[in-house]
Amino acid sequence: MSKKYVYLFKEADGDRKDLFGGKGANLAKMTSWGMPVPPGFTITTEACTRYYDDGERLDDEIVKEIFTTLALVEKDVGKKFGDEKNPFLVSVRSGARASMPGMMDTILNLGLNDVSVKGLAAKTGNPRFAYDCYRRFIQMFSDVVMNVSKSEFEKIIDEVKEARGVKMDTDLTADDLQELIKRFKAVYKKAMGKDFPQDPKEQLIEAVKAVFRSWNNDRAIIYRRENDIPGSWGTAVNVQSMVFGNMGETSGTGVAFTRNPATGENHIYGEYLMNAQGEDVVAGIRTPLSIDHLAQTNLAVYNQFVSIAKTLEEKNKDMQDMEFTIEEGRLFMLQTRNGKRTANAAVRIACDMVDEGMINEKEALLKIEPKQLDALLHPQFDAAALKKAKAIAKGLPASPGAACGKIAFSAEEAVERKNAGEKVVLVRLETSPEDIEGMYAAEGVLTARGGMTSHAAVVARGMGECCVAGCGDLKIDEEKREVYISGKKYTADDYICLDGSTGNVYAGQLPTVEPEVTGNFARIMEWADKYRALQVRTNADTPHDAKQAYDFGAEGIGLCRTEHMFFAEDRIMAMREMIVSKTPEEREKALAKILPMQRGDFIGLYKAMKGKPVTIRFLDPPLHEFVPTKPEEIKALAKEMGITYEDLSATITSLHEANPMMGHRGCRLSITFPEIARMQTRAVIEAAISVNKEGYNVVPEIMIPLVGEVKELKYVKNIVVETAEKVMEEQNMKIVYHIGTMIEIPRAALTADEIAKEAEFFSFGTNDLTQMTFGFSRDDAGKFLGDYYKKKIFESDPFARLDQVGVGKLMKIAIEGGKATRPNIKLGICGEHGGDPSTIEFCHNAGLTYVSCSPFRVPIARLAAAQANINNPRIETVDPKTAYIEEN
Amino acid sequence: MSKKYVYLFKEADGDRKDLFGGKGANLAKMTSWGMPVPPGFTITTEACTRYYDDGERLDDEIVKEIFTTLALVEKDVGKKFGDEKNPFLVSVRSGARASMPGMMDTILNLGLNDVSVKGLAAKTGNPRFAYDCYRRFIQMFSDVVMNVSKSEFEKIIDEVKEARGVKMDTDLTADDLQELIKRFKAVYKKAMGKDFPQDPKEQLIEAVKAVFRSWNNDRAIIYRRENDIPGSWGTAVNVQSMVFGNMGETSGTGVAFTRNPATGENHIYGEYLMNAQGEDVVAGIRTPLSIDHLAQTNLAVYNQFVSIAKTLEEKNKDMQDMEFTIEEGRLFMLQTRNGKRTANAAVRIACDMVDEGMINEKEALLKIEPKQLDALLHPQFDAAALKKAKAIAKGLPASPGAACGKIAFSAEEAVERKNAGEKVVLVRLETSPEDIEGMYAAEGVLTARGGMTSHAAVVARGMGECCVAGCGDLKIDEEKREVYISGKKYTADDYICLDGSTGNVYAGQLPTVEPEVTGNFARIMEWADKYRALQVRTNADTPHDAKQAYDFGAEGIGLCRTEHMFFAEDRIMAMREMIVSKTPEEREKALAKILPMQRGDFIGLYKAMKGKPVTIRFLDPPLHEFVPTKPEEIKALAKEMGITYEDLSATITSLHEANPMMGHRGCRLSITFPEIARMQTRAVIEAAISVNKEGYNVVPEIMIPLVGEVKELKYVKNIVVETAEKVMEEQNMKIVYHIGTMIEIPRAALTADEIAKEAEFFSFGTNDLTQMTFGFSRDDAGKFLGDYYKKKIFESDPFARLDQVGVGKLMKIAIEGGKATRPNIKLGICGEHGGDPSTIEFCHNAGLTYVSCSPFRVPIARLAAAQANINNPRIETVDPKTAYIEEN
Repeated sequence: MSKKYVYLFKEADGDRKDLFGGKGANLAKMTSWGMPVPPGFTITTEACTRYYDDGERLDDEIVKEIFTTLALVEKDVGKKFGDEKNPFLVSVRSGARASMPGMMDTILNLGLNDVSVKGLAAKTGNPRFAYDCYRRFIQMFSDVVMNVSKSEFEKIIDEVKEARGVKMDTDLTADDLQELIKRFKAVYKKAMGKDFPQDPKEQLIEAVKAVFRSWNNDRAIIYRRENDIPGSWGTAVNVQSMVFGNMGETSGTGVAFTRNPATGENHIYGEYLMNAQGEDVVAGIRTPLSIDHLAQTNLAVYNQFVSIAKTLEEKNKDMQDMEFTIEEGRLFMLQTRNGKRTANAAVRIACDMVDEGMINEKEALLKIEPKQLDALLHPQFDAAALKKAKAIAKGLPASPGAACGKIAFSAEEAVERKNAGEKVVLVRLETSPEDIEGMYAAEGVLTARGGMTSHAAVVARGMGECCVAGCGDLKIDEEKREVYISGKKYTADDYICLDGSTGNVYAGQLPTVEPEVTGNFARIMEWADKYRALQVRTNADTPHDAKQAYDFGAEGIGLCRTEHMFFAEDRIMAMREMIVSKTPEEREKALAKILPMQRGDFIGLYKAMKGKPVTIRFLDPPLHEFVPTKPEEIKALAKEMGITYEDLSATITSLHEANPMMGHRGCRLSITFPEIARMQTRAVIEAAISVNKEGYNVVPEIMIPLVGEVKELKYVKNIVVETAEKVMEEQNMKIVYHIGTMIEIPRAALTADEIAKEAEFFSFGTNDLTQMTFGFSRDDAGKFLGDYYKKKIFESDPFARLDQVGVGKLMKIAIEGGKATRPNIKLGICGEHGGDPSTIEFCHNAGLTYVSCSPFRVPIARLAAAQANINNPRIETVDPKTAYIEEN
Repeated sequence: MSKKYVYLFKEADGDRKDLFGGKGANLAKMTSWGMPVPPGFTITTEACTRYYDDGERLDDEIVKEIFTTLALVEKDVGKKFGDEKNPFLVSVRSGARASMPGMMDTILNLGLNDVSVKGLAAKTGNPRFAYDCYRRFIQMFSDVVMNVSKSEFEKIIDEVKEARGVKMDTDLTADDLQELIKRFKAVYKKAMGKDFPQDPKEQLIEAVKAVFRSWNNDRAIIYRRENDIPGSWGTAVNVQSMVFGNMGETSGTGVAFTRNPATGENHIYGEYLMNAQGEDVVAGIRTPLSIDHLAQTNLAVYNQFVSIAKTLEEKNKDMQDMEFTIEEGRLFMLQTRNGKRTANAAVRIACDMVDEGMINEKEALLKIEPKQLDALLHPQFDAAALKKAKAIAKGLPASPGAACGKIAFSAEEAVERKNAGEKVVLVRLETSPEDIEGMYAAEGVLTARGGMTSHAAVVARGMGECCVAGCGDLKIDEEKREVYISGKKYTADDYICLDGSTGNVYAGQLPTVEPEVTGNFARIMEWADKYRALQVRTNADTPHDAKQAYDFGAEGIGLCRTEHMFFAEDRIMAMREMIVSKTPEEREKALAKILPMQRGDFIGLYKAMKGKPVTIRFLDPPLHEFVPTKPEEIKALAKEMGITYEDLSATITSLHEANPMMGHRGCRLSITFPEIARMQTRAVIEAAISVNKEGYNVVPEIMIPLVGEVKELKYVKNIVVETAEKVMEEQNMKIVYHIGTMIEIPRAALTADEIAKEAEFFSFGTNDLTQMTFGFSRDDAGKFLGDYYKKKIFESDPFARLDQVGVGKLMKIAIEGGKATRPNIKLGICGEHGGDPSTIEFCHNAGLTYVSCSPFRVPIARLAAAQANINNPRIETVDPKTAYIEEN
């Protein structure tokens, strides 16, 4: 075999996360820095991809290599795998390039069997410890490798505890544990139809395969889709000598962060449990102690740990999340990684580290996940209301934010009710990886058990979702679907509010306030603006949204959808009059009613943007969207309009389309009814002249939608120019304005060189472009996209994350064509992808002038644009941020 | 002015039809060959495009150039424009690169006014002639230049004739004509609000502008769309010295063909009228004499004409259509052009000319318009039925074919009733350019007046449409909408049949028979096969269609749409059972019922194609197409299926889609329901094995529709391969089969390099590809495409003629990508464009392996493919016609 698939920690390259996964690479680094890491080896991500290429089969050569390497570790620690007297035990952990909570995590104590457990008991003189290890191993192996339900084992533990009259797992004796082992093995046999495997080698290989399989379980696929992780990466497997935190009261295990992951405070922060193994801490079953407490019980170990933590942070130049075990008073580091943190903590840590001189501004910017800023941009509870409100319970402030919703009792329920349009808060005893989809669906998560590092807390922080954890006041009756807090009952119909920054829980609904960009956040944004090349605009249809976006740093409006203005109650009648008009004159009369209102809208927008460019897209949707379809509604409308039911009905029927998405809409409307373009141009120009007379310097940009052929644009452009000239003459004032088009029809991209002859700017309408390029109707694709994810045909939703391969190729053709004809053409994107960081990176690299996104995504886009430019600096003779404005 | 816009006939280049138009170029040629052509000049097509570029304005420099050139002609003929004693008169004619009946044709006698008409009368000593010229001029100028209705003038003529008690125009005296002139001028003044223009220069410039304007009238635009003529070409204008066929009984005018345009017989063929001007012959008002008759009245002129005709045919290497005038016994040639002919005549003339040694096989192939073959491929009346049938009337066999339909009395009516689904025959006194759309809509045309060269006859032949002209037995009462033949009344509800080959008219409906490829037609096809590089396949879903296509020379099936088989009455129930299935097992049970029928279909197809390749496309339409939508139908079906109305209703509702064209269809169905692909694969392979056991060597090609991402194809391909292997094992027989995909989603074209990793062939589904590339729903675009033509945004229907700029660019990307990955990939087209000659030329040049079209278009495609290869020979190391078959 030419390729090496298995590496000792001491021979692996700590910089190759792609090959060894994050966990493996960090173990290699720690080993190389002389830290106390139990020896072991990593099976590479390439072995995982090979496993899938071979049809989910582990090649014999890889198996052989695993055992060859295992033998080296055995020699190192002086124990033998499967030895009856002094068995060598290992942990098996998954470790992908990016941390992935959806995957299988850890199996501990692998290597034990009915014989060696006795040897371990004898060797350590601690039978309770040995049997505890074995029962844990059976439990974990059955669950994660063989998919035997976890709850059956928990039930047995509860039964035995009750029979023995004890409350804590640690109160169980060695005999009790042997009883558990017997019953666990029976469960296994019943479920699997065979005995629990006694051969340690078989145990190991099965565990490795289970890790590889877990790469493609449903949860992992969902997590990857939400986090833009390619399925092709695969996961590594780490096999490490066991050290034991459950050897008695001088042993323990814990997790800690070099800084506070919720606030960012620069103080070591963590939790541990004595006489416990790994999952006891994170599972949230026992409530752990603060890491500071360790200083009181074992100062030497505490100091050693703090020193290691400091070194790790300095070497990795980032806040670390570490796992450690103390075996009979001796410290071992089990893993370290860059710690997940709240958005608040992320901006604070980034700023602090710059101030401490540890990193520079660019490095600081790269440390913040742009999507995470979302948490800082969502409403917080109104301070006044909060002051008056009385908390009904208090838990740990595990992930900040304000969440308000009705109580959902399971992940499935949360997903269902969210889909039905409800806002829900997921309330659980504790959460597990199965709950991830429900957590995404919920506004926030409230758990009764678990600490700041519990599953719920870690995952919620990663999502930027509000979480209050370990709220002991909570009694949950899942069956009855009721929650009791201080004796009061709450049901699925009751609203509760969570304050993730304080841990407070409130009954009912609390008002929220808009967030502001201040403090560390403002500092980060300032740096982002300093280093980015892309402009950031916003999609806004109202002065309110425009103002919000302006406050968030938007440099203009990239998309104002004028149809939203037509739908307003006071205008839809005029719109309908226009639709039933039989002649251009009648149509013009109806449009004349809309003109002053639309002009008012534009004045509002121009003022809100204080003279920054405003791109106005002309009427886009098909006309049938403006008329009712039900007979009784048609009757009522006919009466109101003073026309016959038959007449109105006939008009409405004539508007029906088989595929409205590809029908009579966009510029096609203005081609049939030039009056519409004429009225809209008049409103745009009159409004601009009106505010410019007040001293603004507005340069409106008129955007013609759904162009697929240059002659369409030319036709509408002629109307616009003619009308604009006329208005300027009437008003006796010249203004500058631009005319461009959306590139949202594949043919527009393909013929962009022609279209650029008439268009001063392109704005990529990637929503429609994605629909047409894939032939997917966004309204219908939901029906089959589920199957596409399940069958691994798609990894992400092309409407959320730009398809860079297909749609991106069309965009590149359009950019090339557009620039060939008009080298200084302005290029933007205004589809919903415009706020997606991976798409922003693509747009930066493709040479766009700006991205435009919803107001709340503007700061995210500013950061993502900065990261894109730091990673791949744009070389331009003119500063693109000012070029466009200067030209105006 | 640097550019020259006006050329004397004697200085123009006869090979530059693009610049001088067909008419102008031929006048230049005839002049250079010393033929008796009245002198004149041509205003170039560039002047026309300039006219439009300048906003429909004739540039002063061009006007100046016209008069400078006019002066040269005046000098030549020794007369002065507007001279009061001896006025110089001209004709003004349009003349585009291709002959276009939709445009303004001719104004004669331009230059006359109230004063010079007297001079002309005095000079010629023939006042009747002079006033006849003037009244004709006023009439034509008013009609074509100023749009004053022709019928008003006709009415006046009829009134005056009645008042004078005469029947023929020629019976009117000089005084009568002066009366006409007076009344004509009054009509003009009333309509235009000003006097008839007396300045000959003004008359000329107005006439030139009218020609340019006529380039963009509705009829011309329709004609261009139907005939693939670009709007950018423009038309030339020919200004020629008048010679007079109406100077008395030794004068005359006529049109003639060097060979019979209906049969192709090699004998001069034409008609003339003495004492007449041009339009008298073609308008069909007086019935003209055969050209042979001229030999009896003026043998010298006849011989001179025959000799010129022979020379023209030899020089132009094609059958000529000539216009001539005899002025007081002297012959003048007014124009020549390659003559329009019936399809029958076209193949005969091409073969005869090869036999005569005038042209070679390749030249012969280029002389036939592929679309014209359509006429040879449509049913003819059943000979037996025809023998028994008794004709009710007989006219001239103006354009062959068999037409059967109800009587329509106007072009508008024909269009309306055609759109409503009726088959109609257009019955008119005579036709005019306004009737073109109605002629397209009708099955055939029957006129009461006019000869073989009348408007109806010429246009119908060009269209390949059956026409019986000059049927004098016909009395038409347009107002009452009744036709009388031999005293019997026929109304709009009565069927009539026209036999275009005999001129017979029958009452009722006659049975028709399929055409055959024999005689000259077969010879042409043989040559076509010899010179083409593209393969020609057919789109066929039934053995009947497949057999028809095989007989027409199809080299395989390029597209078998399996869904048509599902819609059959005996299968749709099983299909519906499948749709309401709740589990894969239920679905499989329902599909099992369809399997034997589908297998039977394929066996039939394979046998009909006698072992040639058969491409089978898997189920494509969305499932809702198979279920009813009306409550009563749903109720009935629920009862029949033994399920509740609510259950069936819910299923049907869940199938509803906002944009079904972009919904759950194509390969997306097989991804959700792999059972479908499994059943279809089984049917395809079992059928192939069954016929191959009988000694055939069928190589089925399985085509997966609507792929946009290679993983979709891979997923379905895995199912196909797995199933096929299983079937072959069951049947204990291996067969060769191929798996490919349609390229009909833009993303498929863009990622063709990836898709070619899995696809052995691509077939361009240009119907859907056009829809997605333009974002046009084919079902809805009709609503606005009318506006697109009217506003000159589109020149042709992108669903009929491939959009080579946009869709073609995507195809080229796909071809490049596909070949890069798989150099020997088979490339075909199976959209409806596959039978369109201009698209076939594109496909040839783009390097496709084959085109696939409906059976009746196969011969057309064979010829078009040959022409493409003759015009642009493909250089390949392997003969592409055999490469694919060899590999199989």
